[in-house]
Parts: sequence; C-alpha cells; structure tokens
Amino acid sequence: MAFILTFLGKGGTGRTTCAIAAAKKFAAQGKRVLLVGQDPTPAFGLALGTTVGVDPQEISANFSAVQLQTTTLLERSWEEVKKLEAQYLQSPILKNVFGQELTIFPGLDQLLALNALREFDSRYDVIIYDGAGNQDTLRLLGTPETLSWYIRRFRQVFIDSDLGKTVSMLIQPIAAAIFTNNNFVGDNFAQPTRQANDLLDQGKQAVNDPKRMAAFLVTTEDEAAIASAKYLWGSAQQIGLTVAGVLCNRSSDASAVSEAFQPLPISAIPVQPVNDWQSLIDALPELDHTSEAPRPIAVNVAERKVSLFLPGFDKKQVKLTQYGTEITIEAGDQRRNIDLPAPLRGQPVTGAKFQDGYLIISF
Amino acid sequence: MAFILTFLGKGGTGRTTCAIAAAKKFAAQGKRVLLVGQDPTPAFGLALGTTVGVDPQEISANFSAVQLQTTTLLERSWEEVKKLEAQYLQSPILKNVFGQELTIFPGLDQLLALNALREFDSRYDVIIYDGAGNQDTLRLLGTPETLSWYIRRFRQVFIDSDLGKTVSMLIQPIAAAIFTNNNFVGDNFAQPTRQANDLLDQGKQAVNDPKRMAAFLVTTEDEAAIASAKYLWGSAQQIGLTVAGVLCNRSSDASAVSEAFQPLPISAIPVQPVNDWQSLIDALPELDHTSEAPRPIAVNVAERKVSLFLPGFDKKQVKLTQYGTEITIEAGDQRRNIDLPAPLRGQPVTGAKFQDGYLIISF
Repeated sequence: MAFILTFLGKGGTGRTTCAIAAAKKFAAQGKRVLLVGQDPTPAFGLALGTTVGVDPQEISANFSAVQLQTTTLLERSWEEVKKLEAQYLQSPILKNVFGQELTIFPGLDQLLALNALREFDSRYDVIIYDGAGNQDTLRLLGTPETLSWYIRRFRQVFIDSDLGKTVSMLIQPIAAAIFTNNNFVGDNFAQPTRQANDLLDQGKQAVNDPKRMAAFLVTTEDEAAIASAKYLWGSAQQIGLTVAGVLCNRSSDASAVSEAFQPLPISAIPVQPVNDWQSLIDALPELDHTSEAPRPIAVNVAERKVSLFLPGFDKKQVKLTQYGTEITIEAGDQRRNIDLPAPLRGQPVTGAKFQDGYLIISF
Repeated sequence: MAFILTFLGKGGTGRTTCAIAAAKKFAAQGKRVLLVGQDPTPAFGLALGTTVGVDPQEISANFSAVQLQTTTLLERSWEEVKKLEAQYLQSPILKNVFGQELTIFPGLDQLLALNALREFDSRYDVIIYDGAGNQDTLRLLGTPETLSWYIRRFRQVFIDSDLGKTVSMLIQPIAAAIFTNNNFVGDNFAQPTRQANDLLDQGKQAVNDPKRMAAFLVTTEDEAAIASAKYLWGSAQQIGLTVAGVLCNRSSDASAVSEAFQPLPISAIPVQPVNDWQSLIDALPELDHTSEAPRPIAVNVAERKVSLFLPGFDKKQVKLTQYGTEITIEAGDQRRNIDLPAPLRGQPVTGAKFQDGYLIISF
C-alpha cells in the first residue's frame, strides 16, 4: 500500500513543479515513487523534462511517471465491464459495443483516475497525484464516501417504496423469465455487491487515514492564490482528507501567509533557477509527516460530541441539517453526510458552535 | 438566445481576467451580458472586485455576474426530478429524499453548469463562461453530443439483444403490475423522450454554430502555456467548438506565439496596471467576430469527403476507426463519433490523409 500525496491550490501556483520535486525527494530516499499526471496536455511532459505514456515508465532510479489518458483507461475498464456482464448474463448485450468507440462524458476522467490510483496502490511506496488541484480533485477523492452514501440512502428509499415492495415480489419470476441462467438472482449477486462495498470502504479508509493519504496546499504570496488555498483547505476537510502543510511558492519568507493557515506548518519555496531541482527538493519539508495536522473529524461518544475541522469558513457559510439517522454538513460547495456510530445515530442535535476553526455538534 | 463565449488555456494565464474584461467590453457596447464563474473559491470575487451569489446579480449597467454553486444547483434540479417522477409514477419513490442531503459526485459540477447555461441563454445577449478552461470545459460543452451518441448507440444495442427482445415482450404486463397508472407505457413516455432529444439537439447545434458559441485561447509567452493552448485548440475541434482567436496575455508582441497558432488571429494583451480595465478592454479584439475561423468539420457529400480540422496533432496522434454506420475519431484524449449523412452512412472509408491541419477522410 502506497502513501498517496496530492497538492491543492490555484492554477499557476506551481503545483506540478512541487509534485515533481516531491517525487524526486521520495525517490532519493529510496522509496519506489510513481508520479501520476492527470493533465493530458504536453505541459506535463515539459515540466517533467520528458514525455511519458499511459503506462508507468521509470525515468530515473525509483522514480516512475505516468500521464493518464481517459480514452485508454475507459477502453480497459470497458473490457472488465464486459467480462463481468458475461459472468452474469448468458446473452450479454454489451459484447458488440467496443471500448474504442466510447466517448467521454463529465466525471469519467475523475472516476477512471481514481480506479487507476487504486490499481497502482500496491506497486509503489509513494504515489504523487498531480491532479487538477481544485474542487475536482476533492470530488475525485471524495467519491468512495459519496458513492457509499448514495448506495446506503437509495437502497433504503427503494426498499421502503411501493415500487420496491412490488419489484421484490416480482423480481424472482421476471428474472427467471429473462435470464435463462437461473443463478442470476440470489447469492450470485451478493459477491460482486460485497466486493463493491469492500472497495468503497477501503477507499474511504484510505482517504481518512493521514498515513495513507494527505494533501499539501500550494500558494504564492498573491491574494487570490492564498484565498483559493484557504478555501480548498476547508473543502478538503469535507471529504475527510488531511491537509498536512502549506508550500508558499516563489517566496523567500513564509510569514506573508502564515496568518492565513494557522496551525499548519508553512515552508517557503524560493524561486529557483530553471532545472535546479536539488534546491527545490531541499526547500521542501518532510512530506510524509502528516500525523500532527488537525484531523477532519473526531467523534466523542462519551461526551456525545462530533467535532469537524472547518478552517476558513464562518458559521454563516456552514449549513447543518439532520435527516433520519444522518447529519449533513454543507460548506465549501461540498456536502458531507455523516453516518454516526450507534449511540449517536438518530439522536437529535442539541447544539452546534464554532470554536477555533472547529464546528462542534452536541447530541 | 445568447452568444456564449469561453476561454481555454493553462491555469494562471489570466483567463478569468480576460473573461471579466470581455464581459465589460460587451456591456459597454450595450449588450446584456452575464459572466458565469465556475470556480467556487473566493478568487473569482477577488478578480471581479465584488462577491456575487448563486443567482445573477447586476454589478454595473448591462453587466451581471453569477458564481455557480453545485450544491444549490443540485437542490433545484432535484425538485424538478421529483416533479417529473410524480408525473409518471403514482407512488413516487424519491419524495422522501431531500435535495439538501445530496452529495456531489464527479461530473455533476459540469452537468449542472451546462444546465444553468441553458437556462440563462434566453435572458442575455452574451454569456461569458469562465470555466476550468481545460479538458473539463470541453467535456462539459461536449455533453450534448456525447449523450446523444450513448442514447443512439445503446438503444440499438438493447433492441438488438436477446434481453431487449425479452423485455419488450414483458414490459407491458410488468409495467401494468407495477404502475397502477395504466398510462405509464406508450405515448405518455414519448413526450419526455422527445423533449430530452430536442434539448440535446439544441445543445449540439449551439456548440457547432460559431455565431452561438465560440472559444478564445489564452496563453502567455511561456512554453508550457503555449503547448497547453495548442493542445486545447485541437481538442476543441473534437467537440465541434470553433476557436476564433488567441489572446497572448502579459505580452506586448504577439509574434512570439503567432507561428504556433496559424491561421488564427492573435492579440497581444500587454501587462496592465491593477484595475485598469479600460486598457485591457481596448487590447481585446472583437470577440464576436467568429465566422472566419476554421470550422471543426465539413462534409462534402458530392466529393464523398469529410474534412476534420485537427490543428496541433499529427497523423500518429489521431486514430480513425469505423463501427457500423459511424466513424470514430480519437485525438486529444477525446473521441468523436460522426453520424454521417445518408449517402455516406455505412460506406467504407477508402482513404485518409493529413493536409494543412485537416484530416480528410474519403468514402
């Protein structure tokens, strides 16, 4: 299992340069590193100093890189989908649709990148994900939690509905009529469902564990860059992603931004001569020291309290609602549904207050 | 109907600044302008000099702006979905799911932004869409064509399959059993299906008409910025979007980049004092002069030729395949399926060559 690191910040602040320097730093420490570039343009290869393909290729000792290509990833995933279908349907309907003709719709880039990260995970010590670095990266890394919620919520809605009750009466005879393979219903479906849920659970655990996944903010001294980084800091908490520190790029003095990012450690990254990677590497902090950073969520069952770290937002920018057994936190154009542990589940919220960047909810 | 303009280019090249200046320029010409910001961070408000909300608000004569918020757009769309469901199902299953609890998964930002653009379209003369400016913006604007293809392709696959044949035998009695509303099948469904197809057709026509929609590339003299813009130029052709010109930002001399973007008109945008919008506006070209730009596709039935404008790619970077009645062009991590007019449909490709940036396919 790899440590997955990503960089968040406004476009043009030098995230890709930091990502490459970080990869070189880990590789120099003897770790097997993979740099994953999401940007399909030639800018990625120019920054790297060499073009790389859609499969990881070693560019120096311990250091491999890959430039994701959604068309190729989709072709490969489609083959998997067809195999899965062939396992469950005797007359597969997808066999005449070819991966090479499938077009790309919004969201596929992120979903397939997430799947690629999962597949790379076992083969490296460190994965540096050089993604869009904005809300899109958070949507991508938040997908395991989001999908789990949709499954959990809509499964119950469907079961409780008249339609669900009718279908559950009908599903057996219909299925038998449609699928000559009589094994279609029943336990045959339990296995892939369990596999999918296991995958989502593993994804959620990885995102929520700062030893497995973390982000650094990248900013310059520019006001808009600072504001963007701060917003992304708060938004990252909403997907449970730990932000471990700040890189103040093209700056010799971190004090310009230190106020904005309390209590995170801040490293100034001075402007370097072109291709002087070593100075840049030396200016980076230890990027796997993530355990001291504030954690996105803490549940204290004994005190009947849930604390959410939401830096950069004030009370007016945060909405708290409660439906059924879950509470929903809205902030930073993200929603997070929290499935509370049993003693707090379904209990009414009795109070909420902001304190030192934390939203503290009492039950 | 509005003229919709967007800017494509690497992060940090000044796309948002150009978008604001463009909006001010059109407003000064007496056009009703809406600037649509996709970036949810405070950077958008800082560039604009004022914060705006999730609904358009006028910030000066003729000039309104809006900062999209996916959570809010999703809430509103969800109400529409529930209304639609209630029309067709007597026992709606979604009524107990609230828009306020729905979380955001990858792709929703783009799909809901596209829907917002559609809704704004009738109320303004010009809409400036300040989106991600990269592949994501192209995925968003390419959605009408992509969705049309998936519907067209998978409808046929389903009809041709054993499963489709069985279901079409079963659908009447099943539907009658599930839905006590007997009108569920039949003509009652034809109307929304037609409506959806009409919407997609309108979207495709808008993207493909340079009088309705166009993009400008934004670059600086930086090598990576030029390479990104060039890549996005070619990729835009793949969704049928006309690129009408290039803005070379923070530069007093466009000749540095003119070679890369032949035959597009290039405007140098010199560095301006902060908040000197007028100089910036004066440096912009006429942004609605789009009819002379090369068109992404030309079909010549008499000569049995299809010409695709694919600047920035060479023959090795383009894949051409033919399945059934359509041809698929792959380039720039995009796929385009071209449903040819009747005389060429289903005809075998007899040749393909590159000439002056055009891929010319013969039948």
